[in-house]
Amino acid sequence: MKDDKKQVKSITPMDEDFAQWYTDICKKAELIDYSSVRGCLVIRPYGYAIWENMQRLLDARFRALGHENVYMPMFITESLLQKEKDHVEGFAPEVAWVTHGGEEELTERICVRPTSETLFCEHYAHVIKSYRDLPKLYNQWCSVVRWEKTTRPFLRSREFLWQEGHTMHATPEEAIAETEQMLNVYADFHESDLAIPVIKGRKTDSDKFAGAEATYAIEALMHDGKALQAGTSHYFGDGFARAFDIKYTDRDNSLKYPYQTSWGVSTRMIGGVIMTHGDDNGLVLPPAIAPIQVVIIPVAQHKEGVLEAAHKLKSRLEGKFRVKLDESENTPGWKYAEYEMKGVPLRLELGPRDIAENKCVLVTRHNGEKTVVSLDGIEDSVTERLSAVRDGLYEKALLNRERRTYDCRSIDEIKTSLSEHGAGFVRLMWCGDPECETKIKELTGVTSRCIPFEEEHLDDKCICCGKEAKHMVYFAVAY
Amino acid sequence: MKDDKKQVKSITPMDEDFAQWYTDICKKAELIDYSSVRGCLVIRPYGYAIWENMQRLLDARFRALGHENVYMPMFITESLLQKEKDHVEGFAPEVAWVTHGGEEELTERICVRPTSETLFCEHYAHVIKSYRDLPKLYNQWCSVVRWEKTTRPFLRSREFLWQEGHTMHATPEEAIAETEQMLNVYADFHESDLAIPVIKGRKTDSDKFAGAEATYAIEALMHDGKALQAGTSHYFGDGFARAFDIKYTDRDNSLKYPYQTSWGVSTRMIGGVIMTHGDDNGLVLPPAIAPIQVVIIPVAQHKEGVLEAAHKLKSRLEGKFRVKLDESENTPGWKYAEYEMKGVPLRLELGPRDIAENKCVLVTRHNGEKTVVSLDGIEDSVTERLSAVRDGLYEKALLNRERRTYDCRSIDEIKTSLSEHGAGFVRLMWCGDPECETKIKELTGVTSRCIPFEEEHLDDKCICCGKEAKHMVYFAVAY
Repeated sequence: MKDDKKQVKSITPMDEDFAQWYTDICKKAELIDYSSVRGCLVIRPYGYAIWENMQRLLDARFRALGHENVYMPMFITESLLQKEKDHVEGFAPEVAWVTHGGEEELTERICVRPTSETLFCEHYAHVIKSYRDLPKLYNQWCSVVRWEKTTRPFLRSREFLWQEGHTMHATPEEAIAETEQMLNVYADFHESDLAIPVIKGRKTDSDKFAGAEATYAIEALMHDGKALQAGTSHYFGDGFARAFDIKYTDRDNSLKYPYQTSWGVSTRMIGGVIMTHGDDNGLVLPPAIAPIQVVIIPVAQHKEGVLEAAHKLKSRLEGKFRVKLDESENTPGWKYAEYEMKGVPLRLELGPRDIAENKCVLVTRHNGEKTVVSLDGIEDSVTERLSAVRDGLYEKALLNRERRTYDCRSIDEIKTSLSEHGAGFVRLMWCGDPECETKIKELTGVTSRCIPFEEEHLDDKCICCGKEAKHMVYFAVAY
Repeated sequence: MKDDKKQVKSITPMDEDFAQWYTDICKKAELIDYSSVRGCLVIRPYGYAIWENMQRLLDARFRALGHENVYMPMFITESLLQKEKDHVEGFAPEVAWVTHGGEEELTERICVRPTSETLFCEHYAHVIKSYRDLPKLYNQWCSVVRWEKTTRPFLRSREFLWQEGHTMHATPEEAIAETEQMLNVYADFHESDLAIPVIKGRKTDSDKFAGAEATYAIEALMHDGKALQAGTSHYFGDGFARAFDIKYTDRDNSLKYPYQTSWGVSTRMIGGVIMTHGDDNGLVLPPAIAPIQVVIIPVAQHKEGVLEAAHKLKSRLEGKFRVKLDESENTPGWKYAEYEMKGVPLRLELGPRDIAENKCVLVTRHNGEKTVVSLDGIEDSVTERLSAVRDGLYEKALLNRERRTYDCRSIDEIKTSLSEHGAGFVRLMWCGDPECETKIKELTGVTSRCIPFEEEHLDDKCICCGKEAKHMVYFAVAY
């Protein structure tokens, strides 16, 4: 029987070393394991179940908007990758090259997809012939490879799992509307299901996706005050269509190029969840994606009727919730610590006295709040508590972001805010000149995150050069 | 308005050129497209939806038996691949090698996984420490790469999608039971859901998976009389555990090696469905995996009330079935041909007269049978018809297999049977000597498929050498 709470709980406190705390959670909550290829992770059952829940929820949203799933090859020939100039410049430095098949050297080397614009375009050139073939609303779930120098679990790995939507439209307006719509889907998923507040905005030109006309992104603020780009949506105009010669015959019989988008989110979101909600006891999961939403812990389980009542309760809750009953021989204390580490949103304690009184105790993971509820209508109580967890997590994360958002009107003010109050979002006015963007970074360490859809007018002048300001921009140190 | 049935129907008749017929269906039913890397396919929305249905049904079966999904990296270092001698010999000649990450040459080359035994073993060595950690019942859905010389859509491609289960057990008995159980799952899935009758059996030693002690397989007979290996399940003993030093402390405190299995099915099953059920009008899909189970075709849809009634009917059937209503401007004849090509199991025709009489016409794809049914209780009629399609497909496939199964007692009899009645399964008695196996192949062209779990005693003597027979074996020309 394990009754030593310490063994489970031995993770580095987040205030002591946030990076180590993060890695500790990835390991101790059994999300990942390392493999012999650096930057390539094993995603363990508990971690993968989180990803499957994310997939299921997002996939339903995509389908409801008319998207269809497809599968493109994982390989791109070098000549195909080179068809769009900006794109190849952006990705060639970080792709993994296959040069041999078995014993034979390939006549042309091929890379493992870092993203699949080129593959989708090659296919679209085959199947888009008429205006009747538009729009094409395709999505794929797959893994991609980018040969990064420094890697961290979920946040930056050489192979990662993601979805990539790729769509083609008859008009720029329609394509831009799709780009915005999908960013809104990502934002709503983050806020509703992951309980992570996000800023929606547009990337500055220096930070656009390789080959895109415009890149939109959602940006979240982690517990430590660093920003995380949590999802992106790109508008390509007809640039790729021209490079790949994708043309369709319109109603008026003229040949036209279609307009394109792509959008993606990845296992990076798991990193975002950890760093937004986690604490010194481990992971904290929002109910929508938790592999176990409610864990039932029998108290004094050796006493007559306890396990029987626990099983009965489990049966009642199953189907409505993802429930686990832990009837192992470990002590309740050990179990509490274990499911705290794993971030299970709700613990249900049930002992002989509870059973006698027809009640049980519900404990919410994120704040330790205990509620004694009747076993009659337990389903409603669990629903209410899970909803309270989501709301509590969201409010806590929003409060952290608000506390760590600084409106600054001078370079000095940026430095002072960050040094006095800690890392966070810096909101400032900018003239639109990339040189000022670079200078702000050099002087203060923060980089531009996005120009929010909802800008505020903080000042008339650019914080850097003093010329007329064009935009309010979010800056931060980013993951 | 398209009203030319010919355009849809232009596929090569199967009796004229089965291989071309197969490729025509893959293209015309919009299952695949080719990419610029030979042997790597685009799986289009309709083809991918078939795969997603297969995944969903299998995944539920795996989970019900306690398996958990994980994700392993797609890369294997050369040294990791070499840890198990037989395994590397089997796979090294057909792996794709990555030698460069961006501009840099890797210090050790890595291959894209052809299968993931080595990756699972590396991970299992980290997480299996005690008897309490057993069994480990893991599965993953992913794509793998084998650099094949000749390729065909779904049947043999350089990249393909599959699932691979990898399990670890305390005893050989338990591992063997798992190997057999998963073969039974595959067999039941094929028979119940894909309507494909299969032979369950064991591979001869010459045909075992690289590194396995025993390989079990299900073998199906295609319409043209060639066999298709449709799923395999391997028992590894403790060979990999020893090679990878996976040890656990048993109850008695002694260190032991666990026993291992792996099992997989792939997108090859889509090829099996095409070649088992398809006909000269196109694809024929069993209802369980059909992306569209019922297509509603309005007749004289311009007449008042027809489309309205069709929509009402669609709403009634949705949720219970995967339904499509085609209200495009194409003629009913065009639509009939299109959904025949796509293999939709059931067509529902609804015209003004049907509506007036409160009835509709149901037409089953595989045999063109028409049934006039009342709109009252249409849900039950559709259920009954879909069930009849599954049964009809299964019986037809079984009949084809029975007609094409030849019990042979001499090499000459093999030759005669195949030349007089066409390709098929040859059942024969065998002494167990690999030399006889090779000789049979050289003399007749058929290769051993499996030693069935249910052997019959056809003769006392080996068909080849005349010595005492040990086994009844299925031989065939195989895909």
